[in-house]
Amino acid sequence: MTAPARLNAQMAFLNEACRLKSVTRATTLCDASRPENSAEHSWHLALYALVLGEHAPGDVDIARVIRMLLLHDLVEIDAGDNPIYGQIDHAAVAAREQEAADRIFGLLPSDQAADLRALWDEFEAAESADAQFAKALDRFQPPNQNLASGGVSWLEHNATLDKVETRVGAPIARGAPALWDWIAPRIRTWFAARTPH
Amino acid sequence: MTAPARLNAQMAFLNEACRLKSVTRATTLCDASRPENSAEHSWHLALYALVLGEHAPGDVDIARVIRMLLLHDLVEIDAGDNPIYGQIDHAAVAAREQEAADRIFGLLPSDQAADLRALWDEFEAAESADAQFAKALDRFQPPNQNLASGGVSWLEHNATLDKVETRVGAPIARGAPALWDWIAPRIRTWFAARTPH
Ligand SMILES: [Ca+2]
Repeated sequence: MTAPARLNAQMAFLNEACRLKSVTRATTLCDASRPENSAEHSWHLALYALVLGEHAPGDVDIARVIRMLLLHDLVEIDAGDNPIYGQIDHAAVAAREQEAADRIFGLLPSDQAADLRALWDEFEAAESADAQFAKALDRFQPPNQNLASGGVSWLEHNATLDKVETRVGAPIARGAPALWDWIAPRIRTWFAARTPH
Repeated sequence: MTAPARLNAQMAFLNEACRLKSVTRATTLCDASRPENSAEHSWHLALYALVLGEHAPGDVDIARVIRMLLLHDLVEIDAGDNPIYGQIDHAAVAAREQEAADRIFGLLPSDQAADLRALWDEFEAAESADAQFAKALDRFQPPNQNLASGGVSWLEHNATLDKVETRVGAPIARGAPALWDWIAPRIRTWFAARTPH
C-alpha cells in the first residue's frame, strides 16, 4: 500500500471512530448533568492511567495501557454499551463485539489492523498485567463519578453494595489493589447511609 | 506525601478533569448532530496520534505526543475554548490559561504537577518536534470533521480558504507535512465548490 493509500484507510477509520461520541453509557458526568458518552469516557480513562500509573502493581507498561484504553470501546459503535448492572446474554454480546472489531479495525491498513486488533483482544482477555490494570481503571472510574454525582446511576439501576463489590470491586482488586483499598470504604459508606435503620 | 495522600490529590485532579466534558467547541461532530466537547476531542486526537504516528517527521515520540494531547485542553475548564476563527486578545487568553494551569495541575502531588505542567508548557511553546506534531494534529482533526459534516462550522464562522490556509494549514504543514499534503486539495476543492462563478 502506498503512503497516500494508507492515509486514506487510516482517515476512514478515524472518521468512523467519531461515532463513539454518540454512544451513551449508564453513568452520568460527575455533576450529573447528562449521561457520559464512550469517547469522553475513554479520554478520562487514559488520563486516569497517565496519573495513576504509580499505583499499578508489578510490571505494567502505562503507554500500552493508554493505547488499550483509547481503543477499548470502539466496538460499541456497532455493539452499543452494556451497562454493568443489566441482565445480558454474554455470548451474544461477545459475538456482536467480535463482528464489530472485524469491521472497524478492518478499515485500517492490514498490518495496523492486526496490531490494534491484537491490543483490543489482549484487553478483552484480561490476562496480561497491562490488560488487568486497564480493566481495573475501566471499573474504577464509574464509581468515582457515582460518588461525585450523589449516586445517580446507582439509584437509577438499583445497584446494591453486593453487586458493586462483585462486578466492580473484583476486577479493580485484581488489576489495581491499591485503588480498591482507596475506594472500597467510600462505596461502603455511601451504601450504609442509604440502608434504612 | 504518603500513598493515600497522593491518591487523594490525584483523585481531586481526575474529578476536576471531568468538567472538560462540558466545555464545547466551535466544531461539530462528523455527523453535525451537535458541537463537539473538549474531552471527546482530546480522545479523538490521541487516537489520531496512535494511528498516524508513521506520518510524523523525524524523531517524534508518539507516547509523549499522546500524553500531551490528553492534557492539552485541561486549561479550558477555567479559560474556555477559543475558536480559531474568532477575534481574540492573545495576551489575555494566555494569561487566563497560565492561571488555569496553575490551579488545575496544582491539584496534583507537587512532583507530578511539575512533570505534567512541563509537558503542557512544551505543547504550548510548540518548539519541540513532539509538540509541533501534537499541534499539527490539533489543527488537522477539525477540518476533517468539517469535510465530513458538509462544512457546518466553516459556514457558521464564515471561514475563507485564505484563513484556513493561514490558521490551520501553516501549523499542520510545519508539524506534519504529509498530513497537509493529504488534506490541502480536499479543503481547496470544498471552498472552490462554494465560490460563485
Ligand atoms: Ca468501558
